[in-house]
Formats: sequence, structure tokens, C-alpha cells
Amino acid sequence: MASIMGNTIKLSIFGESHGECVGSTLFLQAPGIKIDYDFIKNQMLKRKSNGILTTPRIEDDEVEIISGVFNGYTNGNPITLIVKNKNTHSSDYEKDILRPSSADYTQKVKQMGFEDYRGSGFASARLTAALVGAGGIILPILKEKGIEIESRIISIHGKTGSDMVEEVKKAKEEEDSVGGIIETTIKGLEPGIGEPYFDSLESDIAKAIFSIPAVKGIEFGLGFGFASKKGSEVNDPFEINEGKVRTLSNNSGGIQGGISNGENIVFRTVFKPTPSIGKTQKTVNLEENKNIDYNLHGRHDPCVLLRAGVIIDSLAGFVILDELCTRYGYLYMKGSK
Amino acid sequence: MASIMGNTIKLSIFGESHGECVGSTLFLQAPGIKIDYDFIKNQMLKRKSNGILTTPRIEDDEVEIISGVFNGYTNGNPITLIVKNKNTHSSDYEKDILRPSSADYTQKVKQMGFEDYRGSGFASARLTAALVGAGGIILPILKEKGIEIESRIISIHGKTGSDMVEEVKKAKEEEDSVGGIIETTIKGLEPGIGEPYFDSLESDIAKAIFSIPAVKGIEFGLGFGFASKKGSEVNDPFEINEGKVRTLSNNSGGIQGGISNGENIVFRTVFKPTPSIGKTQKTVNLEENKNIDYNLHGRHDPCVLLRAGVIIDSLAGFVILDELCTRYGYLYMKGSK
Amino acid sequence: MASIMGNTIKLSIFGESHGECVGSTLFLQAPGIKIDYDFIKNQMLKRKSNGILTTPRIEDDEVEIISGVFNGYTNGNPITLIVKNKNTHSSDYEKDILRPSSADYTQKVKQMGFEDYRGSGFASARLTAALVGAGGIILPILKEKGIEIESRIISIHGKTGSDMVEEVKKAKEEEDSVGGIIETTIKGLEPGIGEPYFDSLESDIAKAIFSIPAVKGIEFGLGFGFASKKGSEVNDPFEINEGKVRTLSNNSGGIQGGISNGENIVFRTVFKPTPSIGKTQKTVNLEENKNIDYNLHGRHDPCVLLRAGVIIDSLAGFVILDELCTRYGYLYMKGSK
Amino acid sequence: MASIMGNTIKLSIFGESHGECVGSTLFLQAPGIKIDYDFIKNQMLKRKSNGILTTPRIEDDEVEIISGVFNGYTNGNPITLIVKNKNTHSSDYEKDILRPSSADYTQKVKQMGFEDYRGSGFASARLTAALVGAGGIILPILKEKGIEIESRIISIHGKTGSDMVEEVKKAKEEEDSVGGIIETTIKGLEPGIGEPYFDSLESDIAKAIFSIPAVKGIEFGLGFGFASKKGSEVNDPFEINEGKVRTLSNNSGGIQGGISNGENIVFRTVFKPTPSIGKTQKTVNLEENKNIDYNLHGRHDPCVLLRAGVIIDSLAGFVILDELCTRYGYLYMKGSK
Repeated sequence: MASIMGNTIKLSIFGESHGECVGSTLFLQAPGIKIDYDFIKNQMLKRKSNGILTTPRIEDDEVEIISGVFNGYTNGNPITLIVKNKNTHSSDYEKDILRPSSADYTQKVKQMGFEDYRGSGFASARLTAALVGAGGIILPILKEKGIEIESRIISIHGKTGSDMVEEVKKAKEEEDSVGGIIETTIKGLEPGIGEPYFDSLESDIAKAIFSIPAVKGIEFGLGFGFASKKGSEVNDPFEINEGKVRTLSNNSGGIQGGISNGENIVFRTVFKPTPSIGKTQKTVNLEENKNIDYNLHGRHDPCVLLRAGVIIDSLAGFVILDELCTRYGYLYMKGSK
Repeated sequence: MASIMGNTIKLSIFGESHGECVGSTLFLQAPGIKIDYDFIKNQMLKRKSNGILTTPRIEDDEVEIISGVFNGYTNGNPITLIVKNKNTHSSDYEKDILRPSSADYTQKVKQMGFEDYRGSGFASARLTAALVGAGGIILPILKEKGIEIESRIISIHGKTGSDMVEEVKKAKEEEDSVGGIIETTIKGLEPGIGEPYFDSLESDIAKAIFSIPAVKGIEFGLGFGFASKKGSEVNDPFEINEGKVRTLSNNSGGIQGGISNGENIVFRTVFKPTPSIGKTQKTVNLEENKNIDYNLHGRHDPCVLLRAGVIIDSLAGFVILDELCTRYGYLYMKGSK
Repeated sequence: MASIMGNTIKLSIFGESHGECVGSTLFLQAPGIKIDYDFIKNQMLKRKSNGILTTPRIEDDEVEIISGVFNGYTNGNPITLIVKNKNTHSSDYEKDILRPSSADYTQKVKQMGFEDYRGSGFASARLTAALVGAGGIILPILKEKGIEIESRIISIHGKTGSDMVEEVKKAKEEEDSVGGIIETTIKGLEPGIGEPYFDSLESDIAKAIFSIPAVKGIEFGLGFGFASKKGSEVNDPFEINEGKVRTLSNNSGGIQGGISNGENIVFRTVFKPTPSIGKTQKTVNLEENKNIDYNLHGRHDPCVLLRAGVIIDSLAGFVILDELCTRYGYLYMKGSK
Repeated sequence: MASIMGNTIKLSIFGESHGECVGSTLFLQAPGIKIDYDFIKNQMLKRKSNGILTTPRIEDDEVEIISGVFNGYTNGNPITLIVKNKNTHSSDYEKDILRPSSADYTQKVKQMGFEDYRGSGFASARLTAALVGAGGIILPILKEKGIEIESRIISIHGKTGSDMVEEVKKAKEEEDSVGGIIETTIKGLEPGIGEPYFDSLESDIAKAIFSIPAVKGIEFGLGFGFASKKGSEVNDPFEINEGKVRTLSNNSGGIQGGISNGENIVFRTVFKPTPSIGKTQKTVNLEENKNIDYNLHGRHDPCVLLRAGVIIDSLAGFVILDELCTRYGYLYMKGSK
């Protein structure tokens, strides 16, 4: 609860889409980690809208680190970073009209009418800017250890390859949106990381990834493909290869019994189409207490996947680093590989 | 980490498949909850093997509550329950032969050769007996509040309906195993439960469910089906119905922005085929440091799904109760609806 | 670990004494709590130096709430507040000279030379400004429930009453410092709050209070006075008084078995004399690796107690609110008494 | 909350004084730690009553480890241990008569009449048997690292030395009880362990120690003695001694800024006289709703200090190990010094 994640290291999040800023605090504890500001900037660019295939809300997303870094290195204290909100059109939002399949209704009930309704408030994907900022600190630590995380879009609206761009363009023209799937690979993670209960690698990665708005499913390795298979077809046989225990296939997605086996961790995340679309939809005007036909006039992504890979990388990176630090301590981050 | 789950209430797990017992501690805090021993017994029966379609290891799984209950009611102290292991054939397990796709290798690396290798030790599905026992206390509390959880198998080895039984029989004859999908529905949960970050309902349910051995994917509502859809097709329109805000469809699976919307929570879990099969497989004998062909002679389920629904119910129930208690306090459990 | 405190609600802290700001995040979750900005300002004034009996570093400590508040009310999201550092004289601090009994040495070892050494960095009492800011939100919530917390200095340098002011003046003239004791009373807390293990009211209050720099001891009720007493002298007899169970004395300080008994919670906190004094002291110059005689030229309090009461109130308030929310849920905050 | 303590490693507690057993679970995670059963047995003897100066309830306190240990070594899974209750005289306890200064009333309110009222139930010092059992696993791990913890009684009923025994005898004869002070020293802890906020060494030790029944105060180093001192008198000067930074005095009790400085950690704990005494006391009979004079006939310690040192050692050991594991990981436990 309480918008904090992690075990040995922690990550918290705060801010609202149309408030003063979004931000996060990274409780790494480890001193002596060099901050690569260019890398952070570059990560933010990956998440930033280019305004063409993505939302016309283009933020100049500068990450400001306001604590925990001294002379370019972490000092071991909590690292709070903020990203200011500048380009907000709050008048685009109508307090009492519920956008279908958005968090408008659920947030209103939960927060009892006190919610910041502008642009989904705390439930907005805008908040993920603060997570990507945190990822900009985490991912280089992992890279130093030989661990790399890569996400790529594998399908949009059921199409693959270059067709995917066409699907997004079409959705944009139609003022509609489309869903799709991102595949993520974590390379270089040693075997033995994770636990059967309740912090299985799958558990902790899933928990983190389901925090990303619009995610509705996750599968590891063969995933839902296992449902129509026999054990004899999909078990991953072991062999000794250059003195190491390896598997001949990787249907397990690198995880067995909740613990890494030294192969690539592979998982796929499905995103629903952005709920905010321009097309006419049936919904409710709460103030007038009546059913209405509604046309949304805001600035929205026709397809969130284009900006989501870097968010997945950031959160998966946090989970992996946390599990490693539980085993080796937070000073692990500082040690040579 | 550390095999503890939950926020306001907690659940821990302990024990090994071939050790003295498996157990769990439920830190409910609430006094005055009547324990329904018959219900617990019945839940255990749902998980128990009948020895026909499931493993020949038939345990007389009696739950012993050794703390936290006084005169038939919870007193508010931690509730520890144990299920003794009786029918163990530890000689079936060979320490240095890695069963493909099991936790044998990963647990050995993690635990550095000190693992209890007998029957997967801590990573065994045997441990879930202790979770079902805890569920036997949790689920009646939810039922009192009008919340019911039901899981049903919707496909096995790609087949549905009565064909599923045939698939399991065939797998058993072939000394093979088969995967499948279970669908779970949570009815009666009020809107407003869950959070966008990081304890979204999807996050916490997924974290819990991925603790169940053999689970490799989870999806909510339309799930992976969203990948080929447009927003205009799958958004759930709102309407006012008898004074309540309802949705006309439930592609969201009852969750929007990580928060319940008052509709049924619906999710599907995929189980891989049990890794332990009798068929010859390639693997490694670590002691002799060589690749071998291996025939496993143990007692195993050809299909874990037959016993898994009650485990999902138990863990999902824990998550729902935890989220409700964060909002309303642990005394919520005791109050009238 | 990780500079986060609390169970159902949480409080985190960040910032450095001579960095950009100090700050905290209050994870209350409850929507609809009115923010009383005047009260917060007033609390900050209680902690602020007046420059006469306290440090000449006078900060215009304005609390900026950058998230979690919308239209003057909490919305239920994390509340981050910052207090900017303005009047910093960083040149007063020498990196390699260890001020005796300060955190200079321990922080340097822990943070391996990457510490922000200016003005004790993260270990500075400056950080408590952010805690008092958080207290400014918490204490009015408790007051609405009839719970009030008051701290008063009961002795300084072994003296009581108006002699205490003289002791501070004398210490200031001598460029020395003095210790003392603060007594805190929590009125209006209902019985039944707290737990025997491990979140006894004493445990959680003590944990919070020992976070305040210079605190070296805490005692509840008769405290160390119990050491020379018999049970028959100090047991608190019960009686029924106007239909309520009350005690005839309050040697227990309102807590029995770790749980509140409905009487006033009473505890005393001892503060050591501020370690930073102007008098010549023996210490170490690490750069030159030699023992030196050292005269500190900085701006320091001769007696921290003058500003500490409001910090105790804030942290004790957080603990009480957290325990109440665990029992009654975070919505308790919003409900009428 | 929820009777769980710790950050990287965890400790939970369960059971009731007159229930089936008391127990604890130690979530160490580290494999390969040899269990020294003789040491555990010896620790239990230190806590056990000899029936002469202590309670006539003499339990044959055998620790049974029911999970987490395989072939004499930890396997890394949760370690649950239980101590069965055998010698219980439950008829000694009257449900509706509140023993003054005990947890009878507060537990009854908290648990709303569902409490196990027999012998203080969960609030009984009987529960500490399970903590001492856990300490029996923890303390040898620290000893391997050169860290030793020793507690000794320094005063009873205001007397020191051999007079203390007389005071206990006299109290026993008078069917009364006496309080006192225990001093604890932790030797061999490296500098740099602990944090300013909120897991200061003082915070975490205090939180743990206040879980012990009858503890009403704790002080570190000079403690309450600081209240009448000047900084120039009590600051601990640094010097370089054989290449190490050391202090010339240890008024700080080995902790500065919440972090260890490499000197001995020294703290004192005050215990109130046992509330249960034979002398006539005023109290309340709740059933009859009237004030009464009451003579307790049970079996009680005239002075809890005789058995309390080993409990302090166990809990302090847990805290120290937890802080070390956060910095170095749980595998630290297994490594050579």
C-alpha cells in the first residue's frame, strides 16, 4: 500500500498529472554510485511524446534530483527526483463526465470526490515519467554488473513488423486507439535470484509491471502457450555446456520455482488500447445524473506502447536490483562486478 | 522477501515437502472471527489428491491451528497452522539429478547445496496446503461481506468441457503432463478498492498468484485479447442503472486504474504442464558432472489444475481482504456488513 | 531501513542540511483531510530558531506541499512537502575534521567518503523541519478525534523552572552546550491501541523518537524510577469510575502490555548537549592523519531542547495515527469522531 | 504491526501462555548456517525458572525446529520453532478480575472479550521463550563475526552487587516484586552500521527491547545522565590509535547520528516490578461491575530481571544482524569473517 515498492531498496511515487510535478524517491542506500545525467535525459526522451504518433502533450521532461546526490555521486540518502508539469490543459477535463475504461470513476469513488480529476490525477501515465527518471539511475548500475534489459513492441492491433506503424496512424486518424504486446528480455542475470514464496521473480516483476497504466496481462516464457502443451514438449532439458548448467530451450523464460536459472528472463506484457479516444462513446454525467453520448476533446496517445518500453525496463530493473541487494546487500551496487 | 505477503494483514509460509510439516501464519489481528473447521476441512479436500486423476501421494491433510484461536474464535493474535507431512517417499528423489523445468537446479544454486532437495523442498506445491488452510479462515470472512470467489478450469491441453478429463487421463497413461487455464471470478467487491501505484488490484493479485508453482501467466478481463482490439471496440461504457454507475460490458475485468469498479473481478491464470513426468528426458547428473537420459519414478500430478482452483481462491481472498482492511482497518472483518 | 517509517500509513524523509532542500512524504491515503496552512506555519515557527537562545542560522522555513493536496484537501495520494535550504554557510564545515560526538565520523564510514559532509548532511537536525511539516498535517487530524499531544521541557542542565533559561544563556556565553529532558503527554487516546509484540506503543514511540538527533534515552510513566520500587508501591490499581475502568495512579504512563489503557500516555526524552561547541576539543584531522586541538566556528544551538518539543509531538502524532489507522483503516481519519 | 519485526531479515512471534505452544519464525534466508542445538538449549536454560528466586512454573522448555533446517544446517527457508506449553495451571486465572498494571484490561479492550485471558495470553512473558530460541540461532552467527552481546543486572530495587539477591528473596517472602536495571554491551560491531532516519541503531534496538514485558525505559551511553551535563564534559574526543579512529571516552554508547562508531554499544534497560503480586490490591471485577480487594494466587516471578538478560541479548542480536544484512546481504551470515 501507500505507493511504495521494494524490499531491501524501495521506490515511492508521488505527484499528479496536472499538479505541480510528478516525482519519485529511490531509497537505494548505497553511496558512491555515479549519476549519468545524459543517460537519464536519454531515457526520458524515449518516454517523451514526439507529438506525431503519440500525444500532442509534449513535455520538456527535465529530471531534477533534489536530494541524495552530492558531487555527482549518490551519498546513500534517499534520492528524490521531480519532473515539473508545464504543458497542462486542465480545462480539457470535465469533472463529472466519466471517460469509459479510464480511472475516472474508480478514483472518484476511492477518493470520495476529493480526487484531482484533471487528466486522471495520480492514475495518469504522466506519473511514469518519475519512474523512468528512477530507472535512469538503476539501469546503469545493472549494466555495470553485466545485466541488460531490453523491451520491444512485438505486435500492435494484431499486426507485427512495419504494419504496426500503419495501425497506429490509422487509429490516430480515426480518433481511436489500439492495443498491443511488448516483449522484454533481461540478459546476464545470474542463477539463484528470486524465491518460491511470495517474492518469486515472476511475482515481483508482475507486481511492478501491473502498476503501469493500461497493462492487463503478463506472461513468462511460453506463457499462455503452455495451456495447450504437454510436459514432454515444453520442459527445458538441462545440459552441461562449457562447465555450466544450461537449458536446451527456454520455455521457462529463465525462471524455475520463482528463481532465475541463468538463462534470459523473457516476459510479454499486453496493453489495452488507450481508453481516451475521440470517438463518440456512451457514458455518464454524474452532476446531471444521466446517461450521455460523449466526445472527448483532449490530447491522447493512440497507442501507449510506443512510449512504454522504457517504463517496463525501469520497473523490471528496480525489481532485479532489489532482489540482488537482498542477497548481496545494498553495497553490492558499489562493488566491482 | 522473506516469504511474507500483505500490507495491513500478513501471511507467511514455512515448511518443506518432505520435512515435518508445512505451515503458515496468518496475521489478521482481528478478534472475534469464528473459525469454521468444517469449511477448512472441505477446502483441504478440494486441494487433496483423489489418486485417480491426480498424484498417488494422498495426504490426510489435517489442519492444526496451534495459536491465535481461543474457544473457537480468533483472539487477534497471529494464527499459525500446520499440516503434517505423513506419506513421504523421500527415496524417490535423487539429490544430484536435476528434473527439467523443476526448481531443482535454481533452488540448489540459491541455497548453495544446503537445499532440502526431497520433493522440491520449499518450492513444492505441497506448501500450498498451508495456503489453502489459511484460505479456509479468510474466505468465510469475505463471504459474510457478500464477496465470493470462484475458480473454474476453462481449458486443459487446449481442450474445453468434458474433453478436458480425457486429456488428463491420456497424459497420465503416457506418463506425461498437460497445461491449462483457470478462470477466477470475484463477485461482490465494492468499487474503490486498490491503488494506481504500486498496489493496484492487478499487481497484488498477480504477485500472489505467481507464488503458486507452475503459474506462468495471468490476464485480467479481456487480457491478451486487448492486443488486437481498438479502444472503441473494448472500452466499457458507463451507464446509470438503478441509481448505480455500472458498465455495459466488462472487458476491464472489474478493474480500472488499478482500482475495483464494482463489476466482477475476472482473471485467468495459465499453468504449465507439471515438470515431473515419467517420460525419458535429457538432463544432468551433477555428481558425475555429465549429461544423462533420465526416467523419473515419483508420484506426480499429470495436471495441476485439478487441485489449483482452491489455491487461487485462497490467495486472491487474502489480497482482497488485505486491501479492504487497509481502507477500513482490521476491525472491518468483525463488523456486520 | 531506507528512511521510511510506519505500518498502515508511512512517512519518509529526504534531503541534506546544505543541499537544495529537506523534505518528507506522508503516505496517508485518506482523502478529504483539510490542510490547515496556518497551523503548519505555526508549528514551523515553534521549531525555528529565534537566533537568541538558539542557532544564529535562521531559516525562513516555508513548507511547500508539491503533491497530494487538491483544492486545500488531501486527495489520498502521497503528500510530498519540501522546505528549501536558503541560509547555508557551507564553508563553515571542514571535510576532514571530525567534530566529537557528532555524526561526522560514523556517516563518513557508512557512506564511504561520499557523504554530504556539510553541516552533518542527512544526519542534521535540519531534516526535522520536514518532520514538523508532516506533523502539521497529522496533529490536527488527531485533535479532531480528541487526541492532543503536548511536550514541555522539565529540566536543562539539571535545573528546572526559570533557572533553565539561565543555564542556556550561560552555555551560550561559554560557547558550550547543555542537555536536558522533555516530558510529553498524549491525552485522549482510547484504550486498546498498540500490541504486545513488536509494535507495542512504547516500541513504536521509542523508535520514532530515537530518530531525533541528540536523543539518548526514553522512559514511560515512572520509567527508570521503577528500578528502586516494589510492585505493591507502583502497580496502578483499577477502579470503576463513572462506568469506566480507570486507574487510581498512572505509573504505567498509560500503557500496559504495550497497549494503551485510556489514561494519559506520558514519556520523557533525554537530549544530550549539542555536540557542536566552540570550546577547544581534541579530535582528528583525517586528511593529515593526525590528532589535533580543534575550535569549531559554526552556528549552533547551545541547547536543542528549545526547538525539540514540536518534533517529538510530530513524530509521536504520526505513531498514534498509524496505530489507529491499522485498527480502523485510513478512512478513520476522515470520519467524525 | 502484525507481530513481525525486521527489515532484510524478519522475526515473527505467535502462541499464547496457556495455549498449545509459543513459537517464532525466523526469516533469515541464508543457507548453510550450522544449528548449535546445545547452545540453544543452554540459552533456554538461562531463561528458565529455577523455581527458587523465580516463578514456580518450571517448564522443560525444549525448542522444536519444525522447518527451515535440513541435516543440521539452515536451508534458507523460514525457520519456525515452537516451545510447547506443558505446566499450565489455567484455573489460576479469573477472567473478569483485572490484575493491576498487567495487560489484563488493555488486552481485553483491544481483543473485545475474545482474548485468551489465561496467564496474560499473548502478552505473557512466556512468549519470550520463542524469542530466546530464535536468539539461539542468531547469536552464534554474530559470534562467528566477532560480535558478542552480554547483559548483566546492575541494580535491583535500588541495590547493587550481592545485595540484589537479598532484595529478591525479601520480595518473594513478602509476596511482592521488585524492579531493576540491566546493562547490555555489544562488542565487536564495526563502525558504519545504522541510519539517522528512521532505523537508527538506537531506534531499532529500542523498538525490539520495548517488546519485552515490563520494560519501561532504555538509555544509551550516558543516557539520562546527559541531562545535567555540558557538551564540553561529555563529548567523546576522537584520536587516531594504531591507525584507527577511536574515541577517548564512550559517553555516546558507541552510537553517533544513529550509526555505530566502532566502540562498544552500551545501553541500559529498566524493568518495572512484576505486576503480579500476592499482596492485596484494589481492582475491578468486571463481571460484577464492582471495585474489589483482590489477592492473586498464581505462580509469579518476584523479579523478572533474573531471566531477562538472555531475552535482551536475543533481540539485540536480531537487530544487529538485520542491520548488517541490509548492508551486506543475507549471504553475509554465511561468509567467513
